Amino acid sequence: MTQPDHSAIPGLEAALAQVWRWHDEGLAGIVRTPFVRADRIGETLGCELWVKLETLQHTGSFKERGALARLMSLTDAERQSGVVAASAGNHAQGVARHAARLGVRAVIVMPRGTPIVKVQKTEGLGAEVVIAGETFDEAQDRAVRLSAEQGLVLIHPFDDPWVIAGQSTIAREMLQDQGDLDVIVSPVGGGGLISGLALGARAARPDITVIGVQAGLYPSMVNALDGGAREMGGSTLAEGIAVKAPGRITAALVRALADDVILAGEPALERALYLYLTEMKVLAEGAGAAGLAGMLEQPERFAGRKVATVLCGGNIDTRLLSSILLRGLVRSGRLARLRIELIDVPGQLVKVSTVIADEQGNVIDVAYHRVFSDLPAKVTYIDISVEAHDRAHMERILAAVRGAGFKVETAAY
Amino acid sequence: MTQPDHSAIPGLEAALAQVWRWHDEGLAGIVRTPFVRADRIGETLGCELWVKLETLQHTGSFKERGALARLMSLTDAERQSGVVAASAGNHAQGVARHAARLGVRAVIVMPRGTPIVKVQKTEGLGAEVVIAGETFDEAQDRAVRLSAEQGLVLIHPFDDPWVIAGQSTIAREMLQDQGDLDVIVSPVGGGGLISGLALGARAARPDITVIGVQAGLYPSMVNALDGGAREMGGSTLAEGIAVKAPGRITAALVRALADDVILAGEPALERALYLYLTEMKVLAEGAGAAGLAGMLEQPERFAGRKVATVLCGGNIDTRLLSSILLRGLVRSGRLARLRIELIDVPGQLVKVSTVIADEQGNVIDVAYHRVFSDLPAKVTYIDISVEAHDRAHMERILAAVRGAGFKVETAAY
Repeated sequence: MTQPDHSAIPGLEAALAQVWRWHDEGLAGIVRTPFVRADRIGETLGCELWVKLETLQHTGSFKERGALARLMSLTDAERQSGVVAASAGNHAQGVARHAARLGVRAVIVMPRGTPIVKVQKTEGLGAEVVIAGETFDEAQDRAVRLSAEQGLVLIHPFDDPWVIAGQSTIAREMLQDQGDLDVIVSPVGGGGLISGLALGARAARPDITVIGVQAGLYPSMVNALDGGAREMGGSTLAEGIAVKAPGRITAALVRALADDVILAGEPALERALYLYLTEMKVLAEGAGAAGLAGMLEQPERFAGRKVATVLCGGNIDTRLLSSILLRGLVRSGRLARLRIELIDVPGQLVKVSTVIADEQGNVIDVAYHRVFSDLPAKVTYIDISVEAHDRAHMERILAAVRGAGFKVETAAY
Repeated sequence: MTQPDHSAIPGLEAALAQVWRWHDEGLAGIVRTPFVRADRIGETLGCELWVKLETLQHTGSFKERGALARLMSLTDAERQSGVVAASAGNHAQGVARHAARLGVRAVIVMPRGTPIVKVQKTEGLGAEVVIAGETFDEAQDRAVRLSAEQGLVLIHPFDDPWVIAGQSTIAREMLQDQGDLDVIVSPVGGGGLISGLALGARAARPDITVIGVQAGLYPSMVNALDGGAREMGGSTLAEGIAVKAPGRITAALVRALADDVILAGEPALERALYLYLTEMKVLAEGAGAAGLAGMLEQPERFAGRKVATVLCGGNIDTRLLSSILLRGLVRSGRLARLRIELIDVPGQLVKVSTVIADEQGNVIDVAYHRVFSDLPAKVTYIDISVEAHDRAHMERILAAVRGAGFKVETAAY
C-alpha cells in the first residue's frame, strides 16, 4: 500500500498530471471502453467481477493509450521529425494509428518472420514498416539506430513515463464507473499496464489492492522483484506478455505499488480465454486473458471481493483460436478420439459405427490404420472422433462400444 | 414512415407505456448494454456503424428483455401459478432466469434432441424442463396444453405485446446514447425484435429508417409482407431466426413500421460472424450477426449513413465456430489443402515437403492416399494442408511446388 514516490522517476509526475488533464477533456481517438460486470465468470470464481473491454479500441488493444499520450507529448520540432518504434504486435498498431491521426511520420521496425497480416495492418494504418532482426531485441536495436540516424523519437512500448501515464487512464475510467472496487488484477509483460493502473487507481483510492499476473513461462517481473532466477522460455499462449526483462521504470513502480505478482500456467491462460469467449462472448488473446487466468489460479484470494481486470487485447491468430475451441470441447468431455481395436475381417467398421450412431454420437472424423500398428497381425485399429452432448453422453457411447465387444480407449487429441 | 396505430393491437399501447416507465426507473436484472462504434467494420461498409452488444446480457441474448417485461406484467394470481414457454434457445434462458429472480415457477418445454448443455443451463437458471415433441411446433403444442392443464401463463417468444414492449427498450437506449441515428437494422425471425425496435425508435424519432434482415433460407416475414411463396427450409447458420411463420401481431407491426425486410445468404451470415469476431473481438451466433449480414449484402443502401444494429445473441456451438474460423482462413487464402500427384517411388514425400518448408509454408495436416485413387497405378496423391502468411505467400508456395515438377491443385476444404 506504499504511495508512489514520483520524484524518483524523472518526468513521471508531470506526465501523469498532463495526461489526466487531457483525459478529463476527453482523449480524442481513444474509446472510453465499456466496463462490464461479468456475472457468469464471477460466479465461477466466487467474486464480483468487472472487466474493462480494451479490445474495443480501434486496433483491438489498450496500447493505443500509451502511444497516443507519448505522441501528444512531443514538441513541435519532434512532431516534424517523426517517431520510431520496434514491435510486431499491438504497440506497432497503436503508434501507427495515432501518429497518422496527428500527422506525424512513424517508422515501425518488425522482426523477420512477423506475419504479413500484421505488417499489412500496420502499413494500412499509415506507418512505414522496416523489417529487421531475427528477434524483438534485434529489431529494437535497429529502432535505436534509426532514431539516432534520422532524428526520430523512439517510443518505447512500456518503459516511458508518458506511455505509463497513458495506460493509467484505464484505471481512472474504471474508478469513475465503479468507485468501490477492492482489487485490480493486471496482466504483466514489460510492466507498463500494471504501472499505469496502479498509479491511476492509487491516486483516487490509496487503499485499493493491485495484483499483477505473469505467464508462468516468463516470470521476469517476479524475478526482478524477489531477485529470483526462475527459468524463462518456451512457447506460451500469452505471447504479448512474454517479455524477458521488465523495464527499469516499470520494475521500480511495480516494486513500490503492486501488492503481488502471481504466475498463471498455460492451462489457466487457455481456460481464461475460453471462458471469456463462451461465457462472456468476447475474444481475448492469451496475454489479454492473463488477469483472469491469475484469478483462476488463486480464486480464494479474490473470493467475495469486487474485482476488476482489463481484457487488454484480442489480437489472436484464427487457427490457434480454432484449436483452443476444440481443446475446450475435449476438456468438457464433448469431443473425444476413440481408438478402437478391430479384428481385420469384413463388417467391423459397420458394426462399430452402428453402435455409435445408435447412441446418437456424432462421428466427425475417421482414420483407419490397417498397416502400421504395434498390434498382432489380423488386429488393426481405427481412430474415430466423436462429438457428444456432454461428458455423461460420451461415457454412454464408450460403454456401448465396449458392450459390443470392442476394446476402446480415448486418445489424446 | 407510417406511424404505429397502437389501437389496432389490443394491449400494446398500455404495455409500451408501462415498460417504458419501468425502463426509465432502471430495469433491474437487465444490463444496459454498451452501444459501441465499430469503425473497422464501418470502414468496410462505408458507413458509420454502431453496434448494441446484447450478448453482454447474462444469458448472452436480448431475449431477457421481453421475458422480463412479460413476467413483470403478471397479476399476483398469475405469479402464484407460474409460467410456461417452449424454446430450445435464448427465450428459454431469458424466461428461466427472470422467473427465478422474481420467484415465479417456470416450466420450459424443449424438443427432443435439444443439446444437454442447453437443458442443463436452463435448469441451472431455476426452471423445470420438460422434453417433448420432435420439433419446435410440437413442443409449443405441449406448452399450450401444460398452460391449460396447470393454469400456467404461456409466454410466447415474440407474438405478445409485453414481449415486444420489452424488446423496444433496446431502441430507447440506442437513441438515448446516439440521438442522430439514420437507420436501425434488425435481425428478423418471428419479428419480436424488429417490432420492438421500430416502436421504441419511432416514438423518439418518427423519421428513422428501420430495416429488417431475414436468413435467405427462411424468408417467412418477406412472404408475409408481399404475399410471396418463397420456399423455406435447409440448414442455416442463423438457426435463431429460422422461423417458418411470423407472429400475427409482429407481421402487422412490421408491415406498418418497417421500411423494408431484406434477405441475407449463408455466405454473408458467415462473413458477418467472422468480421464481428476478428475485427471487433465479439462473438455472435448466426442470427446475432444477421443485421450486419444484411448490410454486407446491400452496402450501397447504408453508405454514408449513421447505422445501428443489434448484436442480439452469442450462443453458438463451439465446434461450429471452430469450422467457421478455419473456413475464414481458407477464404482469405491463408489456409489451403494442396492435392499433389506423386509417382510411387521412394523420396517423393521428402522432396515435396522440402519445397514447402523452403518457402516457409506451415504444414498442419497430411493424408497420403496410396491405394484408392482414380489415377493410373504407380501414381498416387497426397493431401497436404498448408498455412501461409497470406494469399500471395500461398501462391508462391504453389508456384514452388509446381516449379519442382509436381502436379498440384487446391482442394475444397
